[in-house]
Amino acid sequence: MKHIEEVQEWLANNNLDIAYISDFHNIRYYTGFDSDPIERILALFIFPDKDPFIFAPALEVGSVKESGWEYPVFGYLDHEDAFALIKSHINALAGNPKKWAVEKDNLTVAKSEAILRNFPEAKFVENISPFINKQRSIKNEDEINLLLEAGKWADYAFKVGFDALSTNKTEQAVAAEIEYELKKKGVMHMSFDTIIQSGANAADPHGAPKEDTIKPNELTLFDLGTVYKGYISDASRTVAFGEIDDKLKDIYNVCLEAQLTAQNAAKPGMTAEELDKIARDVITKAGYGEYFIHRLGHGMGQSEHEFPSIMEGNKMELVPGMCFSIEPGIYIPNYAGVRIEDCVYVTDNGVKPFTHTSKELQIIPLS
Amino acid sequence: MKHIEEVQEWLANNNLDIAYISDFHNIRYYTGFDSDPIERILALFIFPDKDPFIFAPALEVGSVKESGWEYPVFGYLDHEDAFALIKSHINALAGNPKKWAVEKDNLTVAKSEAILRNFPEAKFVENISPFINKQRSIKNEDEINLLLEAGKWADYAFKVGFDALSTNKTEQAVAAEIEYELKKKGVMHMSFDTIIQSGANAADPHGAPKEDTIKPNELTLFDLGTVYKGYISDASRTVAFGEIDDKLKDIYNVCLEAQLTAQNAAKPGMTAEELDKIARDVITKAGYGEYFIHRLGHGMGQSEHEFPSIMEGNKMELVPGMCFSIEPGIYIPNYAGVRIEDCVYVTDNGVKPFTHTSKELQIIPLS
Repeated sequence: MKHIEEVQEWLANNNLDIAYISDFHNIRYYTGFDSDPIERILALFIFPDKDPFIFAPALEVGSVKESGWEYPVFGYLDHEDAFALIKSHINALAGNPKKWAVEKDNLTVAKSEAILRNFPEAKFVENISPFINKQRSIKNEDEINLLLEAGKWADYAFKVGFDALSTNKTEQAVAAEIEYELKKKGVMHMSFDTIIQSGANAADPHGAPKEDTIKPNELTLFDLGTVYKGYISDASRTVAFGEIDDKLKDIYNVCLEAQLTAQNAAKPGMTAEELDKIARDVITKAGYGEYFIHRLGHGMGQSEHEFPSIMEGNKMELVPGMCFSIEPGIYIPNYAGVRIEDCVYVTDNGVKPFTHTSKELQIIPLS
Repeated sequence: MKHIEEVQEWLANNNLDIAYISDFHNIRYYTGFDSDPIERILALFIFPDKDPFIFAPALEVGSVKESGWEYPVFGYLDHEDAFALIKSHINALAGNPKKWAVEKDNLTVAKSEAILRNFPEAKFVENISPFINKQRSIKNEDEINLLLEAGKWADYAFKVGFDALSTNKTEQAVAAEIEYELKKKGVMHMSFDTIIQSGANAADPHGAPKEDTIKPNELTLFDLGTVYKGYISDASRTVAFGEIDDKLKDIYNVCLEAQLTAQNAAKPGMTAEELDKIARDVITKAGYGEYFIHRLGHGMGQSEHEFPSIMEGNKMELVPGMCFSIEPGIYIPNYAGVRIEDCVYVTDNGVKPFTHTSKELQIIPLS
């Protein structure tokens, strides 16, 4: 439980009495217990110098124990007052803590009021969200290895998807085939709904697969990822389905150059916004700047929405262990879309990708 | 936009200046725009006597317009200060609102602090969450019709699943087959990960399908649902795979009696906890009370986690239009699990189910 020890040290250094972790993703990070409680209460309490405990719906107490959690876990039934029980457990363990660290980016106003009702002397002295975001952004070797495994499954998914392309199939059918083939191999969760977009449909970077069939002699965009033991992959490839014309090839090659230039340049000490600019400059210089309408990348690990965000305005320096996507895109409305994405981890002198499917323009024979 | 008009009326009646809707499920309910912004900012602002507006990531502005939203939508880029922009839009439309209604069950402490920084005179006078929960709990005829359609797909999914049972297949493979068959028919989203549990695995009411093969002469539990135009289905059936012994039949029939007794008794005016007790009494009387370890049901509509909660302690009266699950279960560790569930809607004099797959014990021939 090294991650929890780091929080304990942070609490002690900041002279705080207790940390209330309310985000279930963060609870998974610290404890290994993975469950979204939806409207029920799931909480982790960490103290500078006492054992932490989990508070969970009674239904989940067994699963918490099975997950390998070695400290106390307390349950509550649906009709019980969860925060009154939390108060009694905290009182028994640690008296009446006054200086609290809470996750301001996750804690709801209702829960914060419930804490203040039960602990009238509590002060939310620190927002622990930035500390957690930074802690989670730097992966250790075990985490990198899980991300590499997840990346292998993304590479496999691309192979299934490229082989599945057919003018007789819809974008939705290709997505369904990829997910089915992975489930048959025991990969039960994609990290997000698989995106397959053919021709002009790919011009919407937030779109979903449609009932349109795969178009011949156009680009088809794949964006997908898998979950492996709680860690994810996320990668995009755009392929030509049949021969394509020179303008489409030009867009593809500009996007590829932006992706490769950024991936080759990324290294510790560079800021997130500098990396974004390296890719953006390539696309802007080629005349497509107005069609690259999102940030270069996002942090990833247990989800595809972690830190650091690779975008203008983020002066955070890259350090070894950080993991993020490098995914430039060019989206020309009513015409075509290209996105090429690897997620990478920062090493001592550069970055390495989690996925290895070729990024050179692939021409998939028509079928 | 009748749902928004009801909020405007509520604001006027309570002498409030503005409502800040931050939960994306609620934004979908009011606007029809369906997107989870994850860490980005998506907000709906409603005023008692002015047009509402949506504030969204720039990437999503096009989708908001395409979704049929007929009022203003304002975007922001990742590097911009979202709450400073929100302030300027609100100022331009409605001056400097002081009396705010916010969703205390969803609004984070960080966002509430951002509002208070930009509107130093703002007071969070009302928690709008209970109003929204109540409003959303009562479905109109259009919503019921969508839920009925979603229910038909759940019935189809059961048929696929029962046909797929085989001692050669794992629980995971059966789940994958169901989801693949539905995707091929254009049903792209299940309302939650399909649950298939065979034999003793079904004793964990929160478990997921495993790599274990389907066991002959045991009960197999199916819990599944689909999404249809933003509305969901959710139903459970437990079937015998081959002949089963009398004790398993007894457990099944007790659970069935509890389910049918509750579904037949449910009607307007009854409280949620009374309905829970009707089912629970049947199971307790038969000697299995200690194995029914969760509430009888949950509200549902756009998700399976809405109001009302059908459980001890909830004195909310059922009224026509409410939709919820009736799902008693008996879970005997290391032995077997049974759950039988229909979601229903309250009519003027009873309830009607959204799913119609037979609940009598079905014996699926071994294969």
